[in-house]
Amino acid sequence: MEKMLVFGHKNPDTDTICSAIALSELKKAEGLDVEAVRLGELNSETEFVLKSAGIDAPRLVQTVSNEVNTVCLVDHNEAQQSADDISDVTIHTVIDHHRIANFETADPLYYRAEPVGCTATILLKLFAEKNVEISKVVAKLMVSAIISDTLLFKSPTSTAEDRTAAEKLASIAGIDLEAYGMEMLRAGADVSKKSVAELLLDAKEFDMNGHKIEIAQINVVDEEDVLTRMNEVEPVIQKAIADKGLDLYLFVITNILTNDSVGVAMGTETNAIEEAYKVKLIDGKTKLAGVVSRKKQVVPVLTEIFSK
Amino acid sequence: MEKMLVFGHKNPDTDTICSAIALSELKKAEGLDVEAVRLGELNSETEFVLKSAGIDAPRLVQTVSNEVNTVCLVDHNEAQQSADDISDVTIHTVIDHHRIANFETADPLYYRAEPVGCTATILLKLFAEKNVEISKVVAKLMVSAIISDTLLFKSPTSTAEDRTAAEKLASIAGIDLEAYGMEMLRAGADVSKKSVAELLLDAKEFDMNGHKIEIAQINVVDEEDVLTRMNEVEPVIQKAIADKGLDLYLFVITNILTNDSVGVAMGTETNAIEEAYKVKLIDGKTKLAGVVSRKKQVVPVLTEIFSK
Repeated sequence: MEKMLVFGHKNPDTDTICSAIALSELKKAEGLDVEAVRLGELNSETEFVLKSAGIDAPRLVQTVSNEVNTVCLVDHNEAQQSADDISDVTIHTVIDHHRIANFETADPLYYRAEPVGCTATILLKLFAEKNVEISKVVAKLMVSAIISDTLLFKSPTSTAEDRTAAEKLASIAGIDLEAYGMEMLRAGADVSKKSVAELLLDAKEFDMNGHKIEIAQINVVDEEDVLTRMNEVEPVIQKAIADKGLDLYLFVITNILTNDSVGVAMGTETNAIEEAYKVKLIDGKTKLAGVVSRKKQVVPVLTEIFSK
Repeated sequence: MEKMLVFGHKNPDTDTICSAIALSELKKAEGLDVEAVRLGELNSETEFVLKSAGIDAPRLVQTVSNEVNTVCLVDHNEAQQSADDISDVTIHTVIDHHRIANFETADPLYYRAEPVGCTATILLKLFAEKNVEISKVVAKLMVSAIISDTLLFKSPTSTAEDRTAAEKLASIAGIDLEAYGMEMLRAGADVSKKSVAELLLDAKEFDMNGHKIEIAQINVVDEEDVLTRMNEVEPVIQKAIADKGLDLYLFVITNILTNDSVGVAMGTETNAIEEAYKVKLIDGKTKLAGVVSRKKQVVPVLTEIFSK
C-alpha cells in the first residue's frame, strides 16, 4: 500500500502530536508505510514531552495532498481543524475522542471514536487488539497525552479508562505518574516566555448552526500572568475575528492548580457566553468556575445555545 | 442509565435488523436497558432469517424521541436514512460499515466503523472485546447478516474478516454456511410474491453535493422477473422522484447467481449513470457488469461524478 500521512489537528497539542506518533508506530508494526506529521508549531508542554522522551518532533507540513493520496487522522475529525486540503485526500483511519461534525467521506473507512478523555487511551486498546508491543518511548508519549488531556485526571473528560491506561503506560515508560505529570503540566503552564501568538496557540474553530466560533484555551498556574497581558492579546483576537469572520472568540484561561477558568469573550455574539453560563461579562471577562474542558464544558454548552 | 433504543436504517435489510438485535443483546449483557426496534417493514429474506432463528421481529416504530432521549445506531449513520426525529435524540453508539456523511453530534460518542462487508462482523469483535458469549440464536442472526451483505462472500465488499467471522458464527449457530446461505439468499431473491412497493423496499437516499439521489436494490435469481414488471414499477419510481424532489433514481436489479446487475435510471440526472459506468442507457436501462454492491460500486462512483 502506498504511503500515508498520520496527523492530528491544527494548533497541535500534546495528544495530537503524541497520538500521531503512536498511531504511526502501530501502522508501521502492521507493515504499512506511514509518517507522522504535524500541522503547526509545538506548544511548550509538547516540547517538554518530546525532549523528555528523547525524540524529534514530527515534520511540519502545510498541506498533504501534494505528498499522498491517503491519510489517517488522530484527535480530530472536523474539516476546519484539519489540513487545509483534507477534502483532496482519502481518509483511511480516524482515531478520535471528540464529537463528529463537518466530516464526510465518499467511502467506508475505519473510524474509532470513544467518549474517553484522550485519543491515546483508545490507541492503547488498538495496540492490545492487534497484539503490538508498545516501546518505552511510545508509552511515555501516550501517557503524556493522557496527562495533558485529562489535566492529570482532574478534567471532567477524564474517565476510569483513562486512568487505568495511564497507569499501565506509566509502568511501561518507567515514570512516576504524579511527579512526571505535574512537572509536565507546569512546563506547559509556564507562560512567562510565551509570545502573544503562543498564548493563543491552542485555538479551535467550530461551526455552530451557521455561527463561526473560535475557542482558544491556555493552561496557567496563575491567570493573572495572562490577564495582565490582555492589552497585547486583545488586538490579536480582534484581528482573528475580522480575518475569519468569526461571530464569537472565547479565550479560556485555565488554572491547573485551582481547576477553574477565566473566560474572555469578544465578537458580536458574546451574549451567548452570558446565556450559557448564567454570568455577566465585565470588560468581556468572566470567571468560569469549575470549567477546565473545552470539549465537555464549553463546546456542547455553546452548541446548544446556538442551536436555538 | 435510562432506556435506549437500538435500530438500523429505514427500509431495513437483514444486517440492519439482525445487528440491531445483536447489539441490544450485547448492551443488555453489559447491564444496560435497551430495546431493538425497526424503522420499516421486513423484507422476505429477513423474514426467512427471523423465522429460521425462531425469534420475533423487533417492534416497528415511526419515531424515537417520543420514547427515549438516547439511541444506538447500527448499519447506518446518515440522518436521512435514520429515524425522522434523529436530530431530537442523543446518539450514544454507532456501529457501522458505511461512509460517514450527514452525521453530526454535539457530544463525544462511541463510534465504531470498519471497512468490512457487514456490521455483524464488527459486532463479533465487540462481543469478544467485552468478553460476552454469543447465543446460538444471536449467532444465527449475525451470520445471516454477513451472508446477506456479502452475497455469500461474492460481493466486492466482502473481506477476509467477514468470511472468518461468518465461519465462526456458523459454527456457534450449528449451520452449514453454504447450504443455509444459498437457501436464505434464494428466499430473499424470490420476487414472485412481491408487490411493487416490496421490489423497491431496499431504497436509500443520498445527498451528493446538493443532488438528491435515491438508489434501490433488489436481489433476484433472474432479472427478467423484475424487468417484465417495469410498467408497474416505473410510475412508483416517478412518484418518488416527484414527491421527494429527487434528481436521480437508480434501481439496481442484482442477479445473485451471475453477480451482475441491471440498472434502471430515472430523473433529470440519468446522464450521471452513463458517465459513471461508460454505458449508454437504452430505455433507461443498462447492464452493470460485475456490479453487486451499492456501497462500493455505486455510491462512491456517483459521488465522484456529482462532486465535479
